[in-house]
Amino acid sequence: MSSPLERFYGVIPAGGVGSRLWPLSRADAPKFLHDLTGSGRTLLRGTWERLAPLAGPERVMVVTGRAHRAAVEAQIPELVDRNVVLEAAPRDSTVAIGLAAAILVRREPDVIVGSFAADHVITDEDVFRAAVVQAISVADAGYIATIGIHPTEPAIGFGYIHCGSALAVEGAGDALLVESFVEKPDLATAQRYLADGAHLWNAGMFIARADRLLEEIGRFDPVLRAQLEELAAAWDDPAARGPAVDRLWPALRKIAIDYAVAEPAAAQGRLAVIPGRFGWDDVGDFASVAKLHSGGRASELSILGENARVLADASSGIVVSQSGRIVSLIGVRDIVVVDTPDALLVTTTANAQRVKNVVDALKLSGRDEVL
Amino acid sequence: MSSPLERFYGVIPAGGVGSRLWPLSRADAPKFLHDLTGSGRTLLRGTWERLAPLAGPERVMVVTGRAHRAAVEAQIPELVDRNVVLEAAPRDSTVAIGLAAAILVRREPDVIVGSFAADHVITDEDVFRAAVVQAISVADAGYIATIGIHPTEPAIGFGYIHCGSALAVEGAGDALLVESFVEKPDLATAQRYLADGAHLWNAGMFIARADRLLEEIGRFDPVLRAQLEELAAAWDDPAARGPAVDRLWPALRKIAIDYAVAEPAAAQGRLAVIPGRFGWDDVGDFASVAKLHSGGRASELSILGENARVLADASSGIVVSQSGRIVSLIGVRDIVVVDTPDALLVTTTANAQRVKNVVDALKLSGRDEVL
Repeated sequence: MSSPLERFYGVIPAGGVGSRLWPLSRADAPKFLHDLTGSGRTLLRGTWERLAPLAGPERVMVVTGRAHRAAVEAQIPELVDRNVVLEAAPRDSTVAIGLAAAILVRREPDVIVGSFAADHVITDEDVFRAAVVQAISVADAGYIATIGIHPTEPAIGFGYIHCGSALAVEGAGDALLVESFVEKPDLATAQRYLADGAHLWNAGMFIARADRLLEEIGRFDPVLRAQLEELAAAWDDPAARGPAVDRLWPALRKIAIDYAVAEPAAAQGRLAVIPGRFGWDDVGDFASVAKLHSGGRASELSILGENARVLADASSGIVVSQSGRIVSLIGVRDIVVVDTPDALLVTTTANAQRVKNVVDALKLSGRDEVL
Repeated sequence: MSSPLERFYGVIPAGGVGSRLWPLSRADAPKFLHDLTGSGRTLLRGTWERLAPLAGPERVMVVTGRAHRAAVEAQIPELVDRNVVLEAAPRDSTVAIGLAAAILVRREPDVIVGSFAADHVITDEDVFRAAVVQAISVADAGYIATIGIHPTEPAIGFGYIHCGSALAVEGAGDALLVESFVEKPDLATAQRYLADGAHLWNAGMFIARADRLLEEIGRFDPVLRAQLEELAAAWDDPAARGPAVDRLWPALRKIAIDYAVAEPAAAQGRLAVIPGRFGWDDVGDFASVAKLHSGGRASELSILGENARVLADASSGIVVSQSGRIVSLIGVRDIVVVDTPDALLVTTTANAQRVKNVVDALKLSGRDEVL
């Protein structure tokens, strides 16, 4: 039997729009298709480049919406055709990752899948990959593995992983059992978590043997598991896939894998965590984008786009310049200005989380053309 | 001899770009061509509608740049051709008003001219006109007359008129001699002026017999007076005007009428003032525009342009929406957002005066296409 690492397959669910990054992120140009770090590559491409060296370029699967197929393939020309899984409609992470696992386990029964969001930013990639390698060993031992991030501040926007005792798995010296998954805390709780050292950020990374993952899904929802396996059985048959999708997709349950798999597995002592000491950011809002760009220096103005067309005086925060217009800022601190051809957002980094409310308001008023 | 009011001629110098209202005001769309009050009419049209009832529609002259001829005539279809004076290049207010006076005095020697900026806002128009009627009487008596505005706050952005003793002129019961013109004061001085009741805002309104005005210009600068009279002598002769303009215009001295006429006349006891108790605003920056729109309620968000395309949450200040895009504001207070097709400004009402610096910076960097 080949080594666990040789049996590893990367899965990139590329789905979320990133509403809090509107009007940069749109239904037709979601967050993962943007370069939010100024690195010159999109978040999706960055995710690919982190995973491909580990799994091999022919062993990374992308699960995305039909509308994004061309953009995804343009970003990853190396992506082989059978590794593009197109969703008929968004059905949240359990379906995206579970379907990938169900397809892959039919192709190779002892495959280990590792799922990593398409729109996060990771620095210290070697440290990241070393953590994944440990997680693969833990997964091979039968656990559902996750990678938790050492908190650097008392963040209230993330879920936390409460770590338990050490786990004796060969090749995974850092592995710990997970006591529980914890929802986004209030500030006082987050400060306690930061101080106690036993809580890590949940970065939504899950590594497991595909058969074990499907087992966990089946424990939580046997119908959903059966639907996913039925889809998978038809997937690699061109004549059967379409009818199966038409029949099964509409009824697929929308649920996050945190609830369907991670929480129940933690409660049963089957969830393990590798603490990750690499830089991680989910780039959840424009305050994150600004912070990533300025390297945390709040006094600076970050510019995404054409620097030459931005004139700033006594201003800080972030400007996203996409419209080709002159953008002039005077005396605005911690400002967020997102200038696109058909929509303009002006807010502050402190209000960055509230951008989603605008998107909701635009939806309600039927202005889908700018969403 | 006809009554002073029958000899009155309104003059509207329509020249300034209004740099502090960039990017709304431009070289090709200066401040006076905008509706900054939401009244549905441009500032120029408003000025015309204040003056035409007093002077008669055939007795209002507009002095403007050649580039604005069509726009001015579109705003004032009533304007008769001989009342449009086109400047070859901007030469400040002494030339604009002095040339108008020199042209008009050749047409009717006992004409009384009254000059009023094209881009100010006045409420209580009846009170305004009553003040002008008094000023015309004072002008007929040989004084250079001005109308000073009762200050409503300790403004540091305006010059002040220091009032002296009462003047006994029939039909001008409110007339006072002017002690002196005072430059823009510091805040402490402005507070003293507000308290003492003897200081009025200089609104740049001057009313005088045309011959007296030219006499004052001649005392200050005999060459300039001679140049203006030479231009005027050629003005109504189609064959002579062009060559005279080509010969004389380039050398015309650029100086504000405050310095060339008002200050010297005040020093010699020849300047009189009618205190004006009407609402007045020079709409000098976007803070003024916001205040005019909100009626002084700082908690409100004023919108110039398409209201329906502006979404605001917990925001105040002013949005100028000219680009047809969705504009979304979240949690920004006292904000100024000016959204035009090729340039965007984001600042705060407190920084509104600094907009001119951006215009200067754009000039220096050669980006005249957005100025």
